[in-house]
Amino acid sequence: MDIVKIGFQGESGSYSEIAALTFFSKFKSCFIPFRSFQDLFDNVDNSYVDAAIVPIENSIEGSVNEAYDLLVEKHLFVTGEIYQRIRHCLIVNKQYRELKTVFSHPQALAQCRNYIRKKSLESVPLYDTAGSVKFIKEHAMLDASAIASKRSAEIYDMKIIEEGIEDKNNNFTRFLIVSKIPNNQTNADKTSIIFSISHTPGSLFLILKEFAAKNINLTKIESRPTKDIPWEYYFFVDFEGNPNADGVRASLLNIKNESIFFKILGSYKKAEIF
Amino acid sequence: MDIVKIGFQGESGSYSEIAALTFFSKFKSCFIPFRSFQDLFDNVDNSYVDAAIVPIENSIEGSVNEAYDLLVEKHLFVTGEIYQRIRHCLIVNKQYRELKTVFSHPQALAQCRNYIRKKSLESVPLYDTAGSVKFIKEHAMLDASAIASKRSAEIYDMKIIEEGIEDKNNNFTRFLIVSKIPNNQTNADKTSIIFSISHTPGSLFLILKEFAAKNINLTKIESRPTKDIPWEYYFFVDFEGNPNADGVRASLLNIKNESIFFKILGSYKKAEIF
Repeated sequence: MDIVKIGFQGESGSYSEIAALTFFSKFKSCFIPFRSFQDLFDNVDNSYVDAAIVPIENSIEGSVNEAYDLLVEKHLFVTGEIYQRIRHCLIVNKQYRELKTVFSHPQALAQCRNYIRKKSLESVPLYDTAGSVKFIKEHAMLDASAIASKRSAEIYDMKIIEEGIEDKNNNFTRFLIVSKIPNNQTNADKTSIIFSISHTPGSLFLILKEFAAKNINLTKIESRPTKDIPWEYYFFVDFEGNPNADGVRASLLNIKNESIFFKILGSYKKAEIF
Repeated sequence: MDIVKIGFQGESGSYSEIAALTFFSKFKSCFIPFRSFQDLFDNVDNSYVDAAIVPIENSIEGSVNEAYDLLVEKHLFVTGEIYQRIRHCLIVNKQYRELKTVFSHPQALAQCRNYIRKKSLESVPLYDTAGSVKFIKEHAMLDASAIASKRSAEIYDMKIIEEGIEDKNNNFTRFLIVSKIPNNQTNADKTSIIFSISHTPGSLFLILKEFAAKNINLTKIESRPTKDIPWEYYFFVDFEGNPNADGVRASLLNIKNESIFFKILGSYKKAEIF
């Protein structure tokens, strides 16, 4: 079996890599870090990696806008999902002194807002959680800390001061597997679509009616600006069902007819929520 | 007439302050800067300021999540809206040398992504656009630039290298006026509500049906995690109409009955879109 190349945003030890290790545990795979989401999507598009694992939503901080925008921009497909529990640690150099600052990804800083305030640390946003651990190590910053996974402390051989420092413990991130080739699993039971509609009364209602009429469960609806026409949106809908099932196929055809733009992002096996 | 005290996030010269100057031009008013949205909302809540002007959505980058979350958290009301054209400038110290970095608010950096790449500058996120101009001035950083409004260059007596550097020129931000006392204007023709619903098939459909049945125009729908139960959401809906009009009142009563949580955030005079 060939080695499957999986890309992720961030550095080794990031939550994306942890989620990828679980999702691809049955495959012979290697995991390749990319600095930005743009780089990550570009490298799926040019086939340098076979797939990417992409955080799409956190249960506390909400949707990852840049990931949604890239799903519109690039002609790629969603082929899987996985939920990952997020458990943040405060990580320091072993020779640390009195702490003044805390480095991390803006979402992680936001998720530990109360803890950071209590400790009177100054927040410094960086491109990645594990990347922040790497950064304070490489610069031997003894009055700085980083917020990241336990795994990242192990990888960079750093000291964990405290574990589970997130303000709310029901902190999960949903990740999507994004690839150049759509999934054709017949047992797929969840589907993601994108559409845009005209800005007239009731147009979103006409779309949702299609789902309600067939008793299809929408698990998420998200909107993002089209960027071309102010205050017009792309809608992203996830629902339970396979697009080839009779009822669903008819609904999707109607939705396509009601939409200005319509795309099935992919169907895949629904992941277990912890 | 008393002086009206208006709070805004950021520093003098920020787009929030520019929007406030236009919105409150007919009032004797003063404008008070706050470092964070949390501080800003706290100071409306404790009546230190009479109202706040808050960016809620940008036509390119989408919704301002933290502002939405604070509208749930605090018991405040929306009493007005205004759209502001965003025109970014690259601003430097007068004695600048070869530029290496660019400081600004993450949304402004995102809106000038192509320009920054073309100029090969390294992006450094900061809490505010105008605050970035202040920062590179106070630290006399001659190889650093800031992205902010023309007004902020004037206020801090700095040099503008280029105007209109945003990647897309249809760049507008919608601001809300947030206050402790709801608006009772009888000529209000736009309304904002928040609700949460059960996670069952068709529940969002039942809400939208109420709007569609009365031909009420939804101008925006946004969702944010409740933060207490993973993957359950608050929905924010803006629509054209006054909650005291006969048809609208009946619809809102039905929506309230279908919801777990329901609140009218406020009704106000619809702003002109440029």
